[in-house]
Amino acid sequence: MISPFDGEITAGLYGDAEVAAFFSGEAEVRAMLHVEGAIAAVEADLGIIPETAGRAIKAAAGSVTIPAASLAAGFASAGVPVSALVKEFRSQLAPDVGQWLHWGATSQDVVDTGLVLRLGGVLDLLDARLAELIAALGLAAATHRDTVIAARTRFQMATPTTLGAKIAVWTAPLVRHRARLAELRRRLMQVSFAGASGTNAALQGRGGEVVEGLAAALGLGATPVPWHAARDTMLELGSWFALVTGSLGKIGADLILLGQSEIGEVTAGTGGGSSTMPHKANPVVPEALVALSRVTAGNLGTLAQAMIHAEERDGTALGVEWFTLPSMAVAAGSALRHGIALAGTLKAHPDRIARTFAGDRGMMMAEAAVFALAEEMPRPEAQALVTAAVKAAGREGTLAEALAAAAPGRDWPRLLDPARGVGDAPQIADAAGR
Amino acid sequence: MISPFDGEITAGLYGDAEVAAFFSGEAEVRAMLHVEGAIAAVEADLGIIPETAGRAIKAAAGSVTIPAASLAAGFASAGVPVSALVKEFRSQLAPDVGQWLHWGATSQDVVDTGLVLRLGGVLDLLDARLAELIAALGLAAATHRDTVIAARTRFQMATPTTLGAKIAVWTAPLVRHRARLAELRRRLMQVSFAGASGTNAALQGRGGEVVEGLAAALGLGATPVPWHAARDTMLELGSWFALVTGSLGKIGADLILLGQSEIGEVTAGTGGGSSTMPHKANPVVPEALVALSRVTAGNLGTLAQAMIHAEERDGTALGVEWFTLPSMAVAAGSALRHGIALAGTLKAHPDRIARTFAGDRGMMMAEAAVFALAEEMPRPEAQALVTAAVKAAGREGTLAEALAAAAPGRDWPRLLDPARGVGDAPQIADAAGR
Amino acid sequence: MISPFDGEITAGLYGDAEVAAFFSGEAEVRAMLHVEGAIAAVEADLGIIPETAGRAIKAAAGSVTIPAASLAAGFASAGVPVSALVKEFRSQLAPDVGQWLHWGATSQDVVDTGLVLRLGGVLDLLDARLAELIAALGLAAATHRDTVIAARTRFQMATPTTLGAKIAVWTAPLVRHRARLAELRRRLMQVSFAGASGTNAALQGRGGEVVEGLAAALGLGATPVPWHAARDTMLELGSWFALVTGSLGKIGADLILLGQSEIGEVTAGTGGGSSTMPHKANPVVPEALVALSRVTAGNLGTLAQAMIHAEERDGTALGVEWFTLPSMAVAAGSALRHGIALAGTLKAHPDRIARTFAGDRGMMMAEAAVFALAEEMPRPEAQALVTAAVKAAGREGTLAEALAAAAPGRDWPRLLDPARGVGDAPQIADAAGR
Amino acid sequence: MISPFDGEITAGLYGDAEVAAFFSGEAEVRAMLHVEGAIAAVEADLGIIPETAGRAIKAAAGSVTIPAASLAAGFASAGVPVSALVKEFRSQLAPDVGQWLHWGATSQDVVDTGLVLRLGGVLDLLDARLAELIAALGLAAATHRDTVIAARTRFQMATPTTLGAKIAVWTAPLVRHRARLAELRRRLMQVSFAGASGTNAALQGRGGEVVEGLAAALGLGATPVPWHAARDTMLELGSWFALVTGSLGKIGADLILLGQSEIGEVTAGTGGGSSTMPHKANPVVPEALVALSRVTAGNLGTLAQAMIHAEERDGTALGVEWFTLPSMAVAAGSALRHGIALAGTLKAHPDRIARTFAGDRGMMMAEAAVFALAEEMPRPEAQALVTAAVKAAGREGTLAEALAAAAPGRDWPRLLDPARGVGDAPQIADAAGR
Repeated sequence: MISPFDGEITAGLYGDAEVAAFFSGEAEVRAMLHVEGAIAAVEADLGIIPETAGRAIKAAAGSVTIPAASLAAGFASAGVPVSALVKEFRSQLAPDVGQWLHWGATSQDVVDTGLVLRLGGVLDLLDARLAELIAALGLAAATHRDTVIAARTRFQMATPTTLGAKIAVWTAPLVRHRARLAELRRRLMQVSFAGASGTNAALQGRGGEVVEGLAAALGLGATPVPWHAARDTMLELGSWFALVTGSLGKIGADLILLGQSEIGEVTAGTGGGSSTMPHKANPVVPEALVALSRVTAGNLGTLAQAMIHAEERDGTALGVEWFTLPSMAVAAGSALRHGIALAGTLKAHPDRIARTFAGDRGMMMAEAAVFALAEEMPRPEAQALVTAAVKAAGREGTLAEALAAAAPGRDWPRLLDPARGVGDAPQIADAAGR
Repeated sequence: MISPFDGEITAGLYGDAEVAAFFSGEAEVRAMLHVEGAIAAVEADLGIIPETAGRAIKAAAGSVTIPAASLAAGFASAGVPVSALVKEFRSQLAPDVGQWLHWGATSQDVVDTGLVLRLGGVLDLLDARLAELIAALGLAAATHRDTVIAARTRFQMATPTTLGAKIAVWTAPLVRHRARLAELRRRLMQVSFAGASGTNAALQGRGGEVVEGLAAALGLGATPVPWHAARDTMLELGSWFALVTGSLGKIGADLILLGQSEIGEVTAGTGGGSSTMPHKANPVVPEALVALSRVTAGNLGTLAQAMIHAEERDGTALGVEWFTLPSMAVAAGSALRHGIALAGTLKAHPDRIARTFAGDRGMMMAEAAVFALAEEMPRPEAQALVTAAVKAAGREGTLAEALAAAAPGRDWPRLLDPARGVGDAPQIADAAGR
Repeated sequence: MISPFDGEITAGLYGDAEVAAFFSGEAEVRAMLHVEGAIAAVEADLGIIPETAGRAIKAAAGSVTIPAASLAAGFASAGVPVSALVKEFRSQLAPDVGQWLHWGATSQDVVDTGLVLRLGGVLDLLDARLAELIAALGLAAATHRDTVIAARTRFQMATPTTLGAKIAVWTAPLVRHRARLAELRRRLMQVSFAGASGTNAALQGRGGEVVEGLAAALGLGATPVPWHAARDTMLELGSWFALVTGSLGKIGADLILLGQSEIGEVTAGTGGGSSTMPHKANPVVPEALVALSRVTAGNLGTLAQAMIHAEERDGTALGVEWFTLPSMAVAAGSALRHGIALAGTLKAHPDRIARTFAGDRGMMMAEAAVFALAEEMPRPEAQALVTAAVKAAGREGTLAEALAAAAPGRDWPRLLDPARGVGDAPQIADAAGR
Repeated sequence: MISPFDGEITAGLYGDAEVAAFFSGEAEVRAMLHVEGAIAAVEADLGIIPETAGRAIKAAAGSVTIPAASLAAGFASAGVPVSALVKEFRSQLAPDVGQWLHWGATSQDVVDTGLVLRLGGVLDLLDARLAELIAALGLAAATHRDTVIAARTRFQMATPTTLGAKIAVWTAPLVRHRARLAELRRRLMQVSFAGASGTNAALQGRGGEVVEGLAAALGLGATPVPWHAARDTMLELGSWFALVTGSLGKIGADLILLGQSEIGEVTAGTGGGSSTMPHKANPVVPEALVALSRVTAGNLGTLAQAMIHAEERDGTALGVEWFTLPSMAVAAGSALRHGIALAGTLKAHPDRIARTFAGDRGMMMAEAAVFALAEEMPRPEAQALVTAAVKAAGREGTLAEALAAAAPGRDWPRLLDPARGVGDAPQIADAAGR
């Protein structure tokens, strides 16, 4: 197994069995047979092929067994699996039935419509997981609505916020992803049925009826212009996978940083042990989220190359899609799966948070001090005074002491209490998942 | 100049002056000043800063001149241009006014809101060009509704279609891009105003009002959760640029292939001459479309890496955005500009099309022959007969002759007339741009 | 199976069973056991662990069976397979032996040294295939040393060349790839043995001896500085895979273009049939070469992200390597395998080449005409005269006729014979593979 | 300006003026003129063109001024700048001289040879910077040979090492990059001179002599097979840029992590201030290094697409090179420039390092404890005992106390002194840059 999504050792961490099931050889064969059955049934209904043939093909499509591996030789020679599938399926039908199989269709019709049907299942699954993740994060945000914690900008402690607000920032894009999904689905879930060159010439004017019939039968949409060579819906889908995976990658990166030995303020899941260092709790799953996201980002760039799809059909561009889209789907599924598990086990560690604030010696409240002083003096003066106090405090003193010396007469410890500096963070937490 | 979008020699071909104008240093400074002015005005309206200060800042923001280059040193030291901008702007204001400048804002607020405003202008421009391109292609599709031409699948002649149908396939994604744009705009066009750590702490509970006020003043939306570190809208936008550029790349690739010396059936624009070969007409613009598309595809993969945006702000991820998004916008603009020019000059060459059909010796109608024969015999038998005739015709004979020998008694020349084999192509052409 | 390299249907076309064998779970387990055995043996030789233990571990490492799937749970929890492997292996050893297993090593040592050993096998295989491909192309270049054929620049016929010269251009980079491989191998084939944090602290000063001993035992090099976190050799290797695959992708693209229905001058392999169009011979393998190359190019960009490997070990960066390098190796192997088959079946079709020249009507010799005339008149004048003749010939006339009218008194048909215009092409062909 | 390398605001941080100078329009024009001059001189020496013409062209090539912008229109029409350059240059020569300009050459020859000459200058510069960086890091490694500091694996404190060893890990790949550069230079620095279709047909058998003469005149190599369409040397060079930039990206990432507020053990350069938070010292330059590396990694993937270079010349693939290679060169230059500045200002902060060790409470020495105990008991038993002590110490206690309780009678504070646990780190530091 070449891909870590497929590997015996690795698939448990990186892969996703539920999503992967839609991309197995068996699932592909089943989907293509389903499409062939539907084509025959619709064409029979329309009187294009004999009704008995249509009925027999449709029935057989649901019951016949064609091992995926039996299509390998045909795929190697044709670059698509359909010729071999049709030949094999036809061999299992009576000749006067089999001749009506695949009537007027081209390989790409069957491959793409079958793919769309499977993607529909994938998207149902991922949307449900997104909803579950949003709910879990919403709960975590509520729990930690007021858990004061350092915000870090550019890898430096900035000002206090709450963990709930951090979680809300994680959640907001996920909500947008569900909206995006609903929008792109309308464009993606389209029948492909256009025949050899996209004109349905073989159906002698009745192609449009077949397309409409297939759309109704398969629960898909129908476009008047064939999409054999217009692959925008595939790239839009791939972008969505990258968006989802990227949002989880950001959560992973944050958990890695928050879980560093020296910080340890927030952890989630169960840390992986080391073969030689018993004290370590490696952020195995957050790391996997980052890796999945970086790999999916790269795959997105590769997939986008396949928009340059020559003429009426381009086997080079189709190959690029086949190498990237399924991997991206599994990555998104795996990331969501891990995200749900992490969200449900998220823990804040007050002792470590307190240690951070202690170590900071009030510096994080420098901006708050500036704003407090600015109520009484011009802001540049306030800023200069605080900057001087920061310097005076040096590497050991606290800002409260330094400010007490520089601007006495205020209750600096109270003014510099991080809990007073979280601004709208609780309200942001309340908005998580809305 | 490092980028061909900026190069003195190259920008005329690859770049787009109108889009680029939104990304000049001057435009960036102007947009940031506009945002600073709006912040001051809104805060003054809300009584957060003195009304006179607010009014003065807003007025000065519209009139002050700050050369972009004057921010270079500040950018090199801070990694964002805002500190330098604020310092420079403040130096041009009265001290009791200047102290209220940038009140409660953080650099990222100003950078991102300014960016969104400029992107709004870019998107207006690109949407208008999309509309113009769709119209031009719709016209071309109508003109060539019935221009019979070979469809090519997998780089082989397949069956006849019409040039209008080809153009309709080019156009369909463009129509979808406009729908996508309307959807993503709602998510993208958001004020960023959340202060140092995204909590608007400095505004002591009034941040939400400022956000709402800014949204109203700038014609943008407002989200309750800050998007400093949630960059999905940027990746969604980048994906859209790649979708647009990719669709044009496909047109470019098709024009390259259709314009090969040996084919020459369709040309557009004016071919570039060669320094040594007077007979050549190089497909300079179609090649540029493909190059722009491949580069933009690559940039999309890079941009997607920036979804992993650490904590409350991550200068590594922001840098990656700055290196990719503007280039992608210009690529999309340039591709659309060229596309419009090509669509308006598209020419079919009947003599070359006829030569192709002659050279094909009827082979493209093999499927039509199968379907014609299948009216009288089982389809596998029809297919076998036609396959045999194809072989019999060899590398020189015509399919009509071979079929006349194998299946006499039919008017094969008429049955194999390519014009009879275009199926629904004219109807597909009619759907171009709808 | 998610990757087309692993798929039951697709692996026959896209994959490479021989290369893939080095990346199976079983091969990984075997390699890691081999490394553990070597560590124990070397440490025993050095008196670091008991000699009996060392001997027993080494023997068991060669005979024990640990199913790859049994490491899945351990991998999911630790993010590396070694803890689980060591635990499982230890359970099969006597306790007083097992305690000395993995002495002083860290997971990454075992994973990376095992990987390097497997990569050595992969590189032997690929180098042999490169040699075979170079030989086959050299033969083809010799066969077609003087086969006159059109050169095409920027998708336009340019001037004549020979097929042998084309093949020489394909071959030259392959020769350079072999030189590159020899160079990078020296850097890549290094033992990794540095312990938990890269300092071999557990070995109390004897780490260097173990590294040297392991290098000798495993036929690898030894570096004084650990490479746990310095992944340049991996990116260099990945670049090499992309170079190889890209060179084959260029051959594939050329064969696609040369094999278009309208051109058909050169074919190789056996074209794939269409499910509906009996006359087509799809360039399935050349298309696969292009797809493999585009996918590998994308993977290279992704792999390069893993150079940013944090601190002493970074699970995010390692994950990115695992997702890309094996795929790139298989792509290179598959591309070479296909390339050899194509090189061995390459055929020129003189009738089609002649048709191209006839269709060109001498235009390709325009430059030759310029140079011929330039012997008698200033070159700009010659160029103007020929340009005028090209125009005069229009879309139907021949250049010979037009030049006979414009510059009479020369034997234009002879002067414009393509065979006279191939320049050094035969000599270039002679250099193929040198 | 679209690229941050070109931007008035941004180029100071991200760009590199010295490298960029090689890619200015002016430098390109100068290089191309130099090549045209050399061609004329060599051809005159060989008697191919009149000696006076050759001398005149060569002289004029060194003195003529052709503004880059004057080639823009020609580039837009031809897709290469050479036709316009030749036309403009010729207009400045006497007619009987000008006709011999560009004799037998094709645009690509002049573009590529000019590019190679400029790349030679770039590589000299980068190699010198590499040497300077290696020296600076070697010095820093020596300074910090024994500065005990935590190693972190997978974002967790692992065991102690020394800062010198960390620096040695940064340096080792840089040394390898210099070796790689020497190797690739031999392949890259080649004359391109092969005429319209790569056969030097126009030179009637004397092309080889011109190639040899040009190679001698320009200090380049000569290959018997033209490389117009074999772009492996360009990808190899791009890979090298990505290797260099990636190695600096790793240094940047480490400095970001070591410089986090909570850690602050090592800093370099001068931190960038925040517009609102006076206490912050943002890692602006380390962040830039990471951004440059990620962008260059992405560009590498894009550049690799250009290996698929169709037939004898492919304007789509050349465009992709022009969009990526110069950016990658500047990124490498900028990264090296910043790296040198960081290396020269690297500071360790003993107070913060001590705080880390105190916060760790001895856990980092857990492995050392295991090995110490393993001298007296079986290793699994030792490991179990230490694991139990780690647990017993909990979140507050020290490992020394816990071990004193669990395994009394040993001098645990001394045994757990981090300085005793650095293993070979000082020796590794000694190897820095060797």
